[in-house]
Amino acid sequence: MRAVVAVDVGGTTLKGAVVDATGAVLALRVVPTRSPETSPGTSSPGAPAASLHALVAGLVADARSAGSEVAGVGVASPGLVDAASGTVEFAANLGWRSYPLVAELGERFGLPARVDHDARAALLAERSARRDPLTGDLPRDMAFVPVGTGVASAVATGGVVLAGGTGAAGELGHVVVVPGGERCACGQRGCVEAYASAASIARRYTARGGPVGATAADVAARLGHDDAADTVWGEAVTCLAQAVAALVAIVDPQLVVVGGGLSQAGPALADPLAAALGTALPWRQPPQLDLSRVGPGAGLVGAALLALDAAGVPAADDFHQRARSGAGALQHAAAPRATTGGRR
Amino acid sequence: MRAVVAVDVGGTTLKGAVVDATGAVLALRVVPTRSPETSPGTSSPGAPAASLHALVAGLVADARSAGSEVAGVGVASPGLVDAASGTVEFAANLGWRSYPLVAELGERFGLPARVDHDARAALLAERSARRDPLTGDLPRDMAFVPVGTGVASAVATGGVVLAGGTGAAGELGHVVVVPGGERCACGQRGCVEAYASAASIARRYTARGGPVGATAADVAARLGHDDAADTVWGEAVTCLAQAVAALVAIVDPQLVVVGGGLSQAGPALADPLAAALGTALPWRQPPQLDLSRVGPGAGLVGAALLALDAAGVPAADDFHQRARSGAGALQHAAAPRATTGGRR
Repeated sequence: MRAVVAVDVGGTTLKGAVVDATGAVLALRVVPTRSPETSPGTSSPGAPAASLHALVAGLVADARSAGSEVAGVGVASPGLVDAASGTVEFAANLGWRSYPLVAELGERFGLPARVDHDARAALLAERSARRDPLTGDLPRDMAFVPVGTGVASAVATGGVVLAGGTGAAGELGHVVVVPGGERCACGQRGCVEAYASAASIARRYTARGGPVGATAADVAARLGHDDAADTVWGEAVTCLAQAVAALVAIVDPQLVVVGGGLSQAGPALADPLAAALGTALPWRQPPQLDLSRVGPGAGLVGAALLALDAAGVPAADDFHQRARSGAGALQHAAAPRATTGGRR
Repeated sequence: MRAVVAVDVGGTTLKGAVVDATGAVLALRVVPTRSPETSPGTSSPGAPAASLHALVAGLVADARSAGSEVAGVGVASPGLVDAASGTVEFAANLGWRSYPLVAELGERFGLPARVDHDARAALLAERSARRDPLTGDLPRDMAFVPVGTGVASAVATGGVVLAGGTGAAGELGHVVVVPGGERCACGQRGCVEAYASAASIARRYTARGGPVGATAADVAARLGHDDAADTVWGEAVTCLAQAVAALVAIVDPQLVVVGGGLSQAGPALADPLAAALGTALPWRQPPQLDLSRVGPGAGLVGAALLALDAAGVPAADDFHQRARSGAGALQHAAAPRATTGGRR
């Protein structure tokens, strides 16, 4: 059976999997993005690249042990990604500038590879999870809005994933929704990310008297019992709705899927967000709003889809179902490892 | 020589032309959108449709008199347009709902036809005007922002014109840039259109003591000599930059072309807008900013490109040059006619 290697590159960990065309996950690995020998703050491009190469080599070996040959590699990366040339143009956290990731993987492993932006990879996974069971069609016009440490966006329009002229499309987080408002790391004031990211929700809750170290999940858990939580959550939802409304006005998706860590709040996010989106779009029917179906492993599942595409192997119709549960297992396995700096 | 019929549908007038593949304009006509027998406020779908049919019939006859056979029809329409099915889904000013424009033209005239949204048609014209003279390539990632009575947008991404899931993409005018700000006709407060459209600039200038009946062009002409003009223009530019910055964050065009009536202000618009766009995008290189090259006839030139496409006739490389001056002539011819309610 032919399989592929998928890697989701993060600032802290690299998550990798061996997946076959049916979505069966044959192996999972998670490693620190920088090897322990390298100081965590280093911006040496070599460190994350060396970790990536070691991870891919390990996964190729895992595949062989499982009786499969690897036919391609897919990578989901943060930063500015030029999917056409297979280059990560800029990823601050990784120290990558014009890093020819696809060419390097091709040289080292003799495998076809593809790389794309992590939000766009996750969009591919969420699209695949919404394949029409009767016709096999994928949604043609949809947006994916991951809300976690930051806020981003990815758009498929007319069936084409929108990358932008410089690979920089999808920076929904830096749409200003409160002119003169809270400072954002980007240098502006009032970006949606300064209000609605999980990190901002936690920070703003603590600033209003919530306990130090409280998370966005804690805020969600206290809704209805804690005024500060209600206020901060409500402002986050309103700001997110304003930014999504701008996206809807400009690109008109039929479906907006909210993912990332915040989407795990479920109806506590989806219900007020749908209401706020309706209020923010009085002049048109708002698009359908949905939460992530693939969950936190969407980037990894998307990387597997990129790898299958690179390998010329079509994904099975129910690919996402199996891959999703496999990626979910990784997510659960990865969480404690990542926080304890665990390695294999 | 084969030619095509192009029509730009407006709420007041229909502008029509016979154009050949070299861009030569063989005939021009402008007629009221509603025939004089119909009261101007009527929303009967028949009136504008009857005017359109009469106009197309007249232009087909004009073409024959000029020794040309018409090979296709292209129409630029306001409202919600489904280009794929050739239907105007909704155009309030015209009273059109699910109007099968392409099918009807096909039945009446036996000609292949295409319809698209007027801003998207104008985008096609502006793209064509930026064809690389050496390679023949068109810009792949660009946005067109017409600023006139309203504010809109059209985007080409990866070479594909973005229509949206319901044909409603491009409503940049209703992106909120001043939360709680001036009322917009759409029901919201603080839309960019309520600050930066030519109509809003004129209204806000008069409200600040400018003469009643002053236009946005009057405001532009008084810059540097009139505090109210400076303030209103400056706010319009800042608001427009914020909305364009949101579009850039989400779709990342390499080039933003500002058109519509306001673009005729030239450097008085382009210079402060480029500066404001840089300020509004501190976290990235702003895209190139340019003013319309095709001018007020961009919708009509775009309709001619749609018609050539429907007819399967490729446009000559310098098509837009000739078509543009022809459309410009129409614009000049049309202006006095339109204001005097002139008819042929």
